[in-house]
Amino acid sequence: MATPTPLLKDELDIVIPTIRNLDFLEQWRPYLSPYHLIIVQDGDPAKVVKVPEGYDYELYNRNDINRILGPKASCISFKDSACRCFGYMMSKKKYIFTIDDDCWVAKDPQGKDINAMEQHITNLLTPSTPLFFNTLYDPYRKGADFVRGYPFSMREGVPTAISHGLWLNVPDYDAPTQLVKPAERNTRFVDMVMTIPKNTLFPMCGMNLAFDRSLIGPAMYFGLMGDGQPIGRYDDMWAGWCCKVICDHLGYGVKTGLPYIHHSKASNPFVNLKKEYKGIFWQEEIIPFFQQIQLSKEAVTVEQCYLELSKLVREGLNGVDPYFTKLADAMVTWIEAWTEINSKSPKVTPPIKSK
Amino acid sequence: MATPTPLLKDELDIVIPTIRNLDFLEQWRPYLSPYHLIIVQDGDPAKVVKVPEGYDYELYNRNDINRILGPKASCISFKDSACRCFGYMMSKKKYIFTIDDDCWVAKDPQGKDINAMEQHITNLLTPSTPLFFNTLYDPYRKGADFVRGYPFSMREGVPTAISHGLWLNVPDYDAPTQLVKPAERNTRFVDMVMTIPKNTLFPMCGMNLAFDRSLIGPAMYFGLMGDGQPIGRYDDMWAGWCCKVICDHLGYGVKTGLPYIHHSKASNPFVNLKKEYKGIFWQEEIIPFFQQIQLSKEAVTVEQCYLELSKLVREGLNGVDPYFTKLADAMVTWIEAWTEINSKSPKVTPPIKSK
Repeated sequence: MATPTPLLKDELDIVIPTIRNLDFLEQWRPYLSPYHLIIVQDGDPAKVVKVPEGYDYELYNRNDINRILGPKASCISFKDSACRCFGYMMSKKKYIFTIDDDCWVAKDPQGKDINAMEQHITNLLTPSTPLFFNTLYDPYRKGADFVRGYPFSMREGVPTAISHGLWLNVPDYDAPTQLVKPAERNTRFVDMVMTIPKNTLFPMCGMNLAFDRSLIGPAMYFGLMGDGQPIGRYDDMWAGWCCKVICDHLGYGVKTGLPYIHHSKASNPFVNLKKEYKGIFWQEEIIPFFQQIQLSKEAVTVEQCYLELSKLVREGLNGVDPYFTKLADAMVTWIEAWTEINSKSPKVTPPIKSK
Repeated sequence: MATPTPLLKDELDIVIPTIRNLDFLEQWRPYLSPYHLIIVQDGDPAKVVKVPEGYDYELYNRNDINRILGPKASCISFKDSACRCFGYMMSKKKYIFTIDDDCWVAKDPQGKDINAMEQHITNLLTPSTPLFFNTLYDPYRKGADFVRGYPFSMREGVPTAISHGLWLNVPDYDAPTQLVKPAERNTRFVDMVMTIPKNTLFPMCGMNLAFDRSLIGPAMYFGLMGDGQPIGRYDDMWAGWCCKVICDHLGYGVKTGLPYIHHSKASNPFVNLKKEYKGIFWQEEIIPFFQQIQLSKEAVTVEQCYLELSKLVREGLNGVDPYFTKLADAMVTWIEAWTEINSKSPKVTPPIKSK
């Protein structure tokens, strides 16, 4: 078993949305147990979620969210893993790692367990290179560098805001692809981290994701999904589109590639289709909308960018569906709640806390 | 030894610039011998270049270039591997694979020889996806697909114009990096092909490169380098910047990644520094220049795009150095020569031809 590397132990929280006991954390113990967990319990608040012994955690259920945010709790989704962003808001740390409870420790091609946390931290602590493509990928990795023709003035890179990790075994497919290729498994280990170039959007998956809360936190809003909403399974996509245009505007980088986690079980494609089907046609308009967004020079903080984006969403997407007006409202509410929670000191006492 | 796969046998030429005997082709025999070679002999035309038995080839030296192009031969570099683009012009095939004579067959992590030709052909015959990033990379590869959140309307992709292969062993570093890291070797096999996103420039290396001549050929001009010019080792970079903006404008894709070749020997960093040093500071202005280029709607063929680009170079880069005026002239001459050679039928008889 690999030795834990509790890098950034006091600067990183792990956020987990769940509806069940967190037995999966047993396997992650060598890597995750040094860190503090923020668990966002979805669904029935009466249910007791068990956390393996020895983990330090705080847990919020729907009653807690309602109590802490009051009427602003409306911006936090219910019965959808989008509720996880409440944990981002409650954290007081610089970094967040968020992981789904059906994700396990993956093995590299040599059969060795992959320490996903360590790789995410490396990704976040080294710069990104969004302004020009490096054909040997991450130039800061040992054994690699910038290739011939890479401008020297760009070699310092920019701060990294997001580290997007991938999945072995069950790939992150939409319902139609799941239906067509039920048996497809991702077995290919691509030994690489790269920066997603500036002005290029990507489909951000929330399953295995880390970010610098101090750089991009307020934009990491997972939208309105699940109960009472016409759409699900687009929470991370929404956050990804918003975060990428804001990172591009503010000069931060987004990396994708390593680390892999092992994604154990494909969710039900029929259920997924029901959740996704509006997203599948809406995204045909949403993505071109995000591709043409230009934020103003006046927007210099993430909060300002996000509020400006909410206005653009209200104007630009309400023709797609009235839902986007509601979402634009929720984006504003989210920023208000974020600001309120994060200006308070000391921290709001969480309801359930491990000893 | 792997079985040769003579895909596209009658539709692809291999272009090799050289100053020495082509013994390296012995190792490549299983993969390259089914194809026709166009050899562009650089330097002293009196020297005899030996080609291994059994290869079908035509060979051009400087006297041939002068005879065939007349005064327009001025656009073809001398004493620099940039002369290879003469071979692109003389080809009558749809596809080109160009390789340096210090490149050998690489091995994959299982120790198996890599058929670079086959991979380039796969890259060129499958679409590219420059409009949106796919986090599992090439979605057309076996075992992969488009991930959740990838717009369905973009899943047909666009035609692939360029396949940029990489190098194990000696990486393609500039002289300063070579000087600082003389012993660095690229040992990491990244099992991946990806599309370089639209509006992202990259440093294109001419060592291991394939392209669709019918889509992008006239833009594959390697510029004025070497003898009588103030710069060397930027021939492929120049072609890469020009090709990428034209591919983006015309809706073609550029892929990078697999296949690897084994690059045997680092060139002399002191010699390289002398050739490169102007490029190293010029590129600080050239790259932002290319990043802001917008070609007009009227430019609908590669030739039209390239002539428009030559005007932009003349206006936009002559402040950097008077060399760029000369280069802009040469870009025009290149298109004139390309048009002349490629409108002739039948083909100009090459001087040396294998039986």
